[in-house]
Amino acid sequence: MLLDTIKGVNDIKNIDPSDYAELAQEIRSFLIEKISKTGGHLGSNLGAVELTMALHLFLNLPEDKLIWDVGHQAYTHKLLTGRREGFENLRKFGGMSGFPKRKESDCDCFDTGHSSTSISAGLGLVMARDIQGGTNTVVSVIGDGSLTGGMAYEALNNAAKLETNFIVVLNDNNMSISENVGGMSKYLNNIRTANAYLDIKEGVYNTLKEIPKGNKVVEGIRKAKSSFKHLVVPGMFFEDMGITYLGPVDGHNIPAMLKVFQEAKRTRNAVIVHVITQKGKGYSPAERHPARFHGAEPFDIATGIPAKPRTTANYTDIFSTVMTKLGARDEKVVAITAAMPDGTGLKRFRNMYPERFFDVGIAEEHAVTFAAGLAAGGLKPVVAVYSSFLQRAYDQILHDVCIQNLPVVFAIDRAGLVGSDGETHQGIFDLSYLSSIPNMHIMAPKNKWELSDMMKFAVTFGGPVAIRYPRGEAYGGLKEYRAPIEFGKAELIYAEGEVCLMAAGSMVKTAVEVRERLKNDGYKCSIINARFVKPIDLTAVRWAAGYHKLVVSLEENVASGGYGEKIREAMGQMKTSAGFLQVAIPDEYVEHGNVEQLKKEIGIDTETITERIKKEMENLS
Amino acid sequence: MLLDTIKGVNDIKNIDPSDYAELAQEIRSFLIEKISKTGGHLGSNLGAVELTMALHLFLNLPEDKLIWDVGHQAYTHKLLTGRREGFENLRKFGGMSGFPKRKESDCDCFDTGHSSTSISAGLGLVMARDIQGGTNTVVSVIGDGSLTGGMAYEALNNAAKLETNFIVVLNDNNMSISENVGGMSKYLNNIRTANAYLDIKEGVYNTLKEIPKGNKVVEGIRKAKSSFKHLVVPGMFFEDMGITYLGPVDGHNIPAMLKVFQEAKRTRNAVIVHVITQKGKGYSPAERHPARFHGAEPFDIATGIPAKPRTTANYTDIFSTVMTKLGARDEKVVAITAAMPDGTGLKRFRNMYPERFFDVGIAEEHAVTFAAGLAAGGLKPVVAVYSSFLQRAYDQILHDVCIQNLPVVFAIDRAGLVGSDGETHQGIFDLSYLSSIPNMHIMAPKNKWELSDMMKFAVTFGGPVAIRYPRGEAYGGLKEYRAPIEFGKAELIYAEGEVCLMAAGSMVKTAVEVRERLKNDGYKCSIINARFVKPIDLTAVRWAAGYHKLVVSLEENVASGGYGEKIREAMGQMKTSAGFLQVAIPDEYVEHGNVEQLKKEIGIDTETITERIKKEMENLS
Repeated sequence: MLLDTIKGVNDIKNIDPSDYAELAQEIRSFLIEKISKTGGHLGSNLGAVELTMALHLFLNLPEDKLIWDVGHQAYTHKLLTGRREGFENLRKFGGMSGFPKRKESDCDCFDTGHSSTSISAGLGLVMARDIQGGTNTVVSVIGDGSLTGGMAYEALNNAAKLETNFIVVLNDNNMSISENVGGMSKYLNNIRTANAYLDIKEGVYNTLKEIPKGNKVVEGIRKAKSSFKHLVVPGMFFEDMGITYLGPVDGHNIPAMLKVFQEAKRTRNAVIVHVITQKGKGYSPAERHPARFHGAEPFDIATGIPAKPRTTANYTDIFSTVMTKLGARDEKVVAITAAMPDGTGLKRFRNMYPERFFDVGIAEEHAVTFAAGLAAGGLKPVVAVYSSFLQRAYDQILHDVCIQNLPVVFAIDRAGLVGSDGETHQGIFDLSYLSSIPNMHIMAPKNKWELSDMMKFAVTFGGPVAIRYPRGEAYGGLKEYRAPIEFGKAELIYAEGEVCLMAAGSMVKTAVEVRERLKNDGYKCSIINARFVKPIDLTAVRWAAGYHKLVVSLEENVASGGYGEKIREAMGQMKTSAGFLQVAIPDEYVEHGNVEQLKKEIGIDTETITERIKKEMENLS
Repeated sequence: MLLDTIKGVNDIKNIDPSDYAELAQEIRSFLIEKISKTGGHLGSNLGAVELTMALHLFLNLPEDKLIWDVGHQAYTHKLLTGRREGFENLRKFGGMSGFPKRKESDCDCFDTGHSSTSISAGLGLVMARDIQGGTNTVVSVIGDGSLTGGMAYEALNNAAKLETNFIVVLNDNNMSISENVGGMSKYLNNIRTANAYLDIKEGVYNTLKEIPKGNKVVEGIRKAKSSFKHLVVPGMFFEDMGITYLGPVDGHNIPAMLKVFQEAKRTRNAVIVHVITQKGKGYSPAERHPARFHGAEPFDIATGIPAKPRTTANYTDIFSTVMTKLGARDEKVVAITAAMPDGTGLKRFRNMYPERFFDVGIAEEHAVTFAAGLAAGGLKPVVAVYSSFLQRAYDQILHDVCIQNLPVVFAIDRAGLVGSDGETHQGIFDLSYLSSIPNMHIMAPKNKWELSDMMKFAVTFGGPVAIRYPRGEAYGGLKEYRAPIEFGKAELIYAEGEVCLMAAGSMVKTAVEVRERLKNDGYKCSIINARFVKPIDLTAVRWAAGYHKLVVSLEENVASGGYGEKIREAMGQMKTSAGFLQVAIPDEYVEHGNVEQLKKEIGIDTETITERIKKEMENLS
């Protein structure tokens, strides 16, 4: 195996060029085999095998700097930098991350996870190099999907001023996680179509030379303005900004890429190398179903079918269903996603009500202010988004939605611990950042039925509402507790005395488990389902503080600014003698791993919580 | 006076076209006279007089929708919609806002304040119109400065897909608050230069027709690629995305603008109308010093000189000075601003160390991740930014700086109440949103010397640090308290017993005033200067809780997730018998007005705090 000879960075340079295709094949087989067992990002990695090989042949790592936008496509990079063993425990607790990590290798120069950051970071590394007199090469690799994020444009706008070398590789597979959208995507598609047969710009001039008269050129402009422009200079969009454009080049042809990279390196300004790749390349199930194999669960290699078929509904499914109902019931209900029609479950809404569905691309800021505009225009927009990505739109929520008190509903999926994607993707801050915003109202469902009920409540509420729910299986317990949602009212589940568990959303299930254990140990235990995290139910707090020795708040969110702080504050005003215990995520980033393991690690699992409560009760008595 | 005949919306349509110039002159005189007394945004408003007149002549308000990006240029719009009287109390407490407000007029269809939101909001109004079968026209007016914000690009990328009319007016004055920067600015400048003499695209073809042979065209391309492109189709950058471009047109020529607006209205997709205006037009001091007259204090009309010359230093001045010192002391110190070299005080650093200064344009997200890249490259970046604008970069701080624990210093100006700019600009959330982020450290200086000391501490700290300080005069009291900054340590100012005031930053001054009053009423009063809001000094809290009847936290920030919550939490763990009172900004947006008035209004002024403490002490005894 050629792959066996690659034990560390730059070992690929010992491979004979005639063996590149063979090595690429081995890498693909390795990735498919490993990811079929561990799960992980498959399609993007299969598409970037030759690109990564070419970059490693071109660069001198770790002196040169290579930044991967988003970072989920860096598996081949990890493989070529001596981390082959890491794939055994890819994205497992204590194992290798699915994203670049500075702490994992000196070849990972900048951590990524969210979209569209690589050009900003690369520009920083370029200026740091120049100020300190360095000579290394800096390359940012960004996908065409990530280019829909405004931050990438902000960075390009700045890179345009550079008078020093900075290479941006545009890894263009014509995909976001789902199909890519918007003007930029259309533009890149035109380049691909018009120039597939051209050798970097040269053909352009030959084409024009064959035209005998200027008038004909003018006619050409009149008749086919768009395609003419692209014939004149592919990538003029970028050149208009002041950035050199090279390409397009076949991203599965290593010699062709190496030639262009060398040309790019001679440039004394920012240069975009436009590389065309195919997502899922070399594995036909991934080529055919790119969205499904974007982030894959373990699967059967022969068929591409998931190893463990899902038998239970997750919260995304519940949301998906209720949205189709709400869409049928009220024509004013519209839905917005930032490039995640599949992930958020909005695909069914899109299929049923295409004219009321908007995929804005990877553009959370625009998504939120666009929703504010829709609401100001009289509609009832629902923004479906992952918790960690909504962080991008904090100011838009605060400034564009909540000041005007507009009826935008935020359906926040992946709130709480998400597991294998790790630090960058944990949805553990939303209760805090949303709570700081006036006019915002926050809910969290205890089980699957409550998510439906809350969505129905939210779209008729008439002001900003956020509903946060976790990744994975929807809790099917407590079905019999389904009192109507009332604004600001918590739900009493058990009233027994001694300990009162006040739990938000996903932690109601945990509270039920904790209560079982506490009962076995002889404690009486009440449970209140918060339902509303903002505003909290003061009557419920008063009851909890008045009839219990210990009030325990439980939330899958950092402590600062979260649910527990509000309970503590309310109890402070009441001057009760009851004790208070706050169960929340400590003030630290939470790495990747199985959610149950992570909960144990940070002390919000059933066992740890039970022990903490028992200890607190002993202290109180 | 023609202006006297304009009493409400659409009254301008009764003005004879031959009187437009006269009316524009009257409006300018009115604005200069009023703003010279009240202060306000002058330059942008003088530049937009004819543009606003043309839009009001073109549109049928309030049925049609007109969105002003940022919104500080909407004074003429307010004047033409019956709000002339409002200018008497412009930006005063209870008076007219300096920004568009839905609650102020039905002609203000969307509130603005921060940059680059108007295209997103406009797109929302367009889709809401179409879904509900409306026929009104929607116009977003955006400056070339706001076009450096990535969100505007995200929105354009989406607008490109439209198959319905949406007019974006690009109000191009070649300025941000200071000079505009970046590739887009350069591009727009090329259009201005190349096409000043052309009548919307027509001239282009005539130029080409004169060329006898195709080869000559090719030569032209080779020799002057850039200018040729712009000759072929001005605005191709936008057309490449799929957006119709019309212009450039003289933004001080009303008939010319009306002609283009009518053409734009016939378009069945998104269309950019590129309007060239001059910031400060018609008032020579503002034409000559656009940055100074961006947001002006009251001034003398004849000379343009501020009515009340500043005699005392504000925090921005202190920051400005210490940055020049830090720049001299350490060549690794670099500075970043998002389009505010003047406002943040970085101008002097720029003049002394131009190669270590970066103005990235109105692009806070990029600014922060760019800083992360600089830090990853071994430098010590200082990001100087206003508190409310840093909200834009919440995810970048969390995801790009703090996960990697990079040594980026955030110098957060205008933290706390900012006064006359109102709701959108109050810097009252930073302690909350920053506190939720692991690895972040937050400081706030009590007076001017402490800001210097903290800056010196921060650049050598080696991790993320935020220092927040308020707008306006720097506190010059407590000069004798200047113990060295130690990580996580608060500073004891007075140790007397009974009441302990624990104050963060600007509230130390208030605490001194409160203490005076409490002493007069016979209370003993200690003061602790927090210095660090994260992490808080637990030893200080223990001392406060152990030796006082009442601990009072004071902060100029919303309560949720702020300083007081941390004190409350710490005291909760200590099981002290001391009472606790949290002085913070309530959970509501704070409108415009004099800062002292606002503090009174929301109950964080000296008098109200004193009374609250006395009442609390009575309850405790």
